[in-house]
Amino acid sequence: MRPFMDEDFLLTTETAKMLYHEVAEKMPIIDYHCHINPQEIAEDRKFDNISQVWLGGDHYKWRLIRANGTTEDKITGDASGREKFREFAAVMPKLIGNPMYHWSHLELQRGFGITEPLTPDNADEIYDQCNEILQEYSARQLMEKFNVRAICTTDDPCDDLYWHGYIANDETMQIKVLPAFRPDKGINIEKAGFDEYIRKLSGVVGRELKSAEDVAGALVERIDYFASKGCLCADHGLDYCMYADPEPAKADEAFAMAMEGKRPPKDLTDAYKTLVTVACAKRYAQLDWVMQIHFGCLRDNNKPQFAALGPDTGYDAVNSQSGVENLSPLLNAFLENDGLPKMILYSLNPEDNTAITTIMACFQGGGVAGKMQMGAAWWFNDSRPGMRQQLSDLAANGVLGRFVGMLTDSRSFLSYTRHEYFRRVLCELVGEWVESGQYPNDEKQLKALVADLCYNNTNEFFRFGV
Amino acid sequence: MRPFMDEDFLLTTETAKMLYHEVAEKMPIIDYHCHINPQEIAEDRKFDNISQVWLGGDHYKWRLIRANGTTEDKITGDASGREKFREFAAVMPKLIGNPMYHWSHLELQRGFGITEPLTPDNADEIYDQCNEILQEYSARQLMEKFNVRAICTTDDPCDDLYWHGYIANDETMQIKVLPAFRPDKGINIEKAGFDEYIRKLSGVVGRELKSAEDVAGALVERIDYFASKGCLCADHGLDYCMYADPEPAKADEAFAMAMEGKRPPKDLTDAYKTLVTVACAKRYAQLDWVMQIHFGCLRDNNKPQFAALGPDTGYDAVNSQSGVENLSPLLNAFLENDGLPKMILYSLNPEDNTAITTIMACFQGGGVAGKMQMGAAWWFNDSRPGMRQQLSDLAANGVLGRFVGMLTDSRSFLSYTRHEYFRRVLCELVGEWVESGQYPNDEKQLKALVADLCYNNTNEFFRFGV
Amino acid sequence: MRPFMDEDFLLTTETAKMLYHEVAEKMPIIDYHCHINPQEIAEDRKFDNISQVWLGGDHYKWRLIRANGTTEDKITGDASGREKFREFAAVMPKLIGNPMYHWSHLELQRGFGITEPLTPDNADEIYDQCNEILQEYSARQLMEKFNVRAICTTDDPCDDLYWHGYIANDETMQIKVLPAFRPDKGINIEKAGFDEYIRKLSGVVGRELKSAEDVAGALVERIDYFASKGCLCADHGLDYCMYADPEPAKADEAFAMAMEGKRPPKDLTDAYKTLVTVACAKRYAQLDWVMQIHFGCLRDNNKPQFAALGPDTGYDAVNSQSGVENLSPLLNAFLENDGLPKMILYSLNPEDNTAITTIMACFQGGGVAGKMQMGAAWWFNDSRPGMRQQLSDLAANGVLGRFVGMLTDSRSFLSYTRHEYFRRVLCELVGEWVESGQYPNDEKQLKALVADLCYNNTNEFFRFGV
Repeated sequence: MRPFMDEDFLLTTETAKMLYHEVAEKMPIIDYHCHINPQEIAEDRKFDNISQVWLGGDHYKWRLIRANGTTEDKITGDASGREKFREFAAVMPKLIGNPMYHWSHLELQRGFGITEPLTPDNADEIYDQCNEILQEYSARQLMEKFNVRAICTTDDPCDDLYWHGYIANDETMQIKVLPAFRPDKGINIEKAGFDEYIRKLSGVVGRELKSAEDVAGALVERIDYFASKGCLCADHGLDYCMYADPEPAKADEAFAMAMEGKRPPKDLTDAYKTLVTVACAKRYAQLDWVMQIHFGCLRDNNKPQFAALGPDTGYDAVNSQSGVENLSPLLNAFLENDGLPKMILYSLNPEDNTAITTIMACFQGGGVAGKMQMGAAWWFNDSRPGMRQQLSDLAANGVLGRFVGMLTDSRSFLSYTRHEYFRRVLCELVGEWVESGQYPNDEKQLKALVADLCYNNTNEFFRFGV
Repeated sequence: MRPFMDEDFLLTTETAKMLYHEVAEKMPIIDYHCHINPQEIAEDRKFDNISQVWLGGDHYKWRLIRANGTTEDKITGDASGREKFREFAAVMPKLIGNPMYHWSHLELQRGFGITEPLTPDNADEIYDQCNEILQEYSARQLMEKFNVRAICTTDDPCDDLYWHGYIANDETMQIKVLPAFRPDKGINIEKAGFDEYIRKLSGVVGRELKSAEDVAGALVERIDYFASKGCLCADHGLDYCMYADPEPAKADEAFAMAMEGKRPPKDLTDAYKTLVTVACAKRYAQLDWVMQIHFGCLRDNNKPQFAALGPDTGYDAVNSQSGVENLSPLLNAFLENDGLPKMILYSLNPEDNTAITTIMACFQGGGVAGKMQMGAAWWFNDSRPGMRQQLSDLAANGVLGRFVGMLTDSRSFLSYTRHEYFRRVLCELVGEWVESGQYPNDEKQLKALVADLCYNNTNEFFRFGV
Repeated sequence: MRPFMDEDFLLTTETAKMLYHEVAEKMPIIDYHCHINPQEIAEDRKFDNISQVWLGGDHYKWRLIRANGTTEDKITGDASGREKFREFAAVMPKLIGNPMYHWSHLELQRGFGITEPLTPDNADEIYDQCNEILQEYSARQLMEKFNVRAICTTDDPCDDLYWHGYIANDETMQIKVLPAFRPDKGINIEKAGFDEYIRKLSGVVGRELKSAEDVAGALVERIDYFASKGCLCADHGLDYCMYADPEPAKADEAFAMAMEGKRPPKDLTDAYKTLVTVACAKRYAQLDWVMQIHFGCLRDNNKPQFAALGPDTGYDAVNSQSGVENLSPLLNAFLENDGLPKMILYSLNPEDNTAITTIMACFQGGGVAGKMQMGAAWWFNDSRPGMRQQLSDLAANGVLGRFVGMLTDSRSFLSYTRHEYFRRVLCELVGEWVESGQYPNDEKQLKALVADLCYNNTNEFFRFGV
């Protein structure tokens, strides 16, 4: 019987312990994809209470509390922080097998030094303890505590990157905080608010946007602006991976309809999206950026609750129609347009792993090591089984030693512990392979491998230079 | 080396042994979904021989015997019970890794006290032993032997529930035997025999049924009748999960075509099915029933054999086109019609697990604990790997502690041992999580969890009151 | 800590060791599906260097080297054998978790007696060692070294089987070398070069082919020719499993279009393909041949590289649209045409396993043991996890004891070690089942099971008579 989540948590072999404690644990963190608000870093925000950090915007937790029978007032409503914390504590003992159980306890341990499991019985006590300790920390202090070297936030093309400039000019700030270019609102033409967004983008670039190619041109201009501020990567979020022949006539027809508030049919929609995406990809390739594509999410499923609470409130799911069948033609479109950048591909549907790893292998080459990457287990898959599956699937059909590894995808300064979670899962798996005789017990080679997967590959692939 | 299927079968850790022997093994059984004929309970049927029980209607076994090269006469044909039993014994040693190997031996052990593995060598001897012991049992005695407290059978809306009334009035009967409402024949408009069935339903409610809404009204009337007989749940069996905007005009067009013996096109078919299903769901919600949906089955694949033997004879398969992409709009249709009942969702396609668990999480809420459930591993998935997968997938994206657990889905009084199988797999998995430090070794908390998953959650969720 | 790939590699239990060393290791090899050129056997080819054998045509390895950042000149280009070998050695330490790591080291161990792991440091030394030893071997000597009893090559219907005749008449040759009938070029009407191929086939049968039925007739004639040369099986390679009602009018329309160099629409394409396939299947059934169908491959994804290097150069992937939904109607079409032969079904998409195992179970019967088979883990799935998954999935829904087991699918005389890899994985899994009490520890029964799965089932199913 191993103790509950002690210092050797998930380290089931001596090899795993050695690799984790001698290498993985000591590597700094690069968090190349997160949703932290840069203003909070610039202003070095402090937090009033743990419910603000944990339950203020965390829809992962909201879903679980809802499923336990708590009413909405104590989840997203007006109840006090303490009341909300109690509801979260109430579901905790029932979360056996859920990654939230581990994430939360890792945060309690590393952030607050609390090692006992959270239960309804000790909820009030732990709430008070956390709040007391929280007073000692600011945003930047948390980042330093977790040994963060660089992060990329997620930024709209229209953003002037004011807060990024503010941070860059702050000489007391040692951690690299870079923007990432996220042009979803200019690409996802099928979504409400597209027309309004295009008018905003038009204002930013200072000219009218009358066609798909005009939008592409405006986005490329903003890519260059982001590049001038040190940006090294972009991220495209797609409900489904689309492809249609990027004919300007069709793309423009879609654009015209959408600007009149109409929803274009799927073939025109996909022509528009493909055309603009191909144009962005080409510019990324020229700038040697990394392009991330996240696809396979079915959003806003509960219509009454979406109407009441808006997006990102816990009503998203895995899209069984992820469009992975369009991945190959989309990548070909990049290639044939002389613009296949370094890429990281994520599908929310874990059934796509084998298709992705085998398709991306067809686009490796050109002398760029690990040019095509399958992204770390994303969102609903960011669990021990999900991470093991992603690592195993990638290893089976690709070169695991070239993988760029983990990111948090998080809005919280406490969730850097997910890098710890990933590193433990990684060392567990590597330890199993080595101790079962499937890979040589060559300490030097193993340590290099783990250091690469925790930090070095990311640093080199993105060109962070930290 | 652990002995073959002894009392610690699958209990690989001390925690698993403790939880199974101190809790799981002692909990009574509620079998909330089965296909037992209530008349057999009412009349307290006895059985002549083990082939009658095991091979009389068990298409799981037939498939395996066929694959071993046995001809149909010794499977579904006129051969004697002994001859058929020998054919089953012949395939047994080749069934390594098949759940039938475990199910059958659990039944031999618990039902007949036979602990040696069945082989061609001892087939005759075991056949005789079983038959001798079978004389001692009746249907009710078997149910009592397995500590069954309540079951739900599967009943057609046209059924007058005579045998259920008979059992309810029988004061010697301690076990609750309730009907479950299964309106498939009135909903699956694309199937042969629909028109005939509607005429039968029309006779039962005593009025002509001229439209989709008439059918919905008739079914709601029968739901109320079932409720008056103590019914607490319904079950909908769908080859694929459908959704189409439930427009009455389209639904009626489908209905009119089907009543003339024509097969309506898919869009009309789905409008009809959605409309009637939404109406049923609304009534279930009002009555606080549990609604089950089983989908993803591809039926009657072997046409010549289907023509010869009829349905449910071993020619069904997993439907790779399960329609899981329609689950979200279907649940929304329930919700927007003010009628989302407590639900249990089952897909026969295990690739749907992640989609289901993440979609259903979007419909949790309203203060009902565990309102949306993913059902236990169904049919072809009802194996140790399948159950582990279902439990892990549910745990990863939901609240495992709220799960309502196991059912037999069986026609046989011997198959309550599947609850034992499930409980062993559950304790094995929980034991692994605890002993690897992934969940606290808190005996009280663990025992409560296991008791909930074996019995308490089901009892409360369905309101059995046993 | 177990040593790296020693004699007990993957044999994690005493049962596994016993079964492997006392049975599996000693069984001869029948390789019923490979791509060896029979001329190389006839002429008893020798090899100049290990790069020729390993890197001359092995697109598995090319993909991995590309992903490591090597440029094409050192993969498929003009660089020397030594330079290419160094590039392969460079990626090796990064291939943890990849089956290539095991395949390559098994070949180094069994073929060359080299037990140290290949790294950039020892690449030159190992290159020289291998080349020296290679001089001692010829093609036939390698086959004898690996205890091969029979193989089936892959042959075009137009082939006159000259080299097969040559081998059959060579009295010094003890190993059975049979052709396998692979009519893809006459069936895959949607592929470039179809019209040209039909003209070639027309020349071979000596008459004009004017319709789908003419093509079917020509293929049946060639089947009979192959049968006269001892052929026992056929193999159909399909990008996706197709089905359409095999109406001659539609099939002929497709044929006419294709012969004019036009690409017929999908419904006509599928009618043609179904019609010709059904005709072939009927003849196979009459001859008691085994019919293999490989489907689910997405080919030639990287268009610029395909244009530069041609097919089979490392640009293929798993097809997420594998067409598994057409499997049931296709098998029914065989059955209803009185021509369902013994079959082995392979999908490249591992997500299809459950659908395949449950569908094929619907077509078992007629007194033929194991008539319908799911093929061994194919291509991208031919890894330890992939083989375990295939064995477990098959066992869960079928009769594992009837499985016909492993094949290499390879162009190389060194890759018979994949049979060893499979046998180790099989013994590992069986050992786990036995030692965890899931299957009886009956040595005689277990040895018979393993001998069947390694050799006997294949020999009987195909009627090799070796």
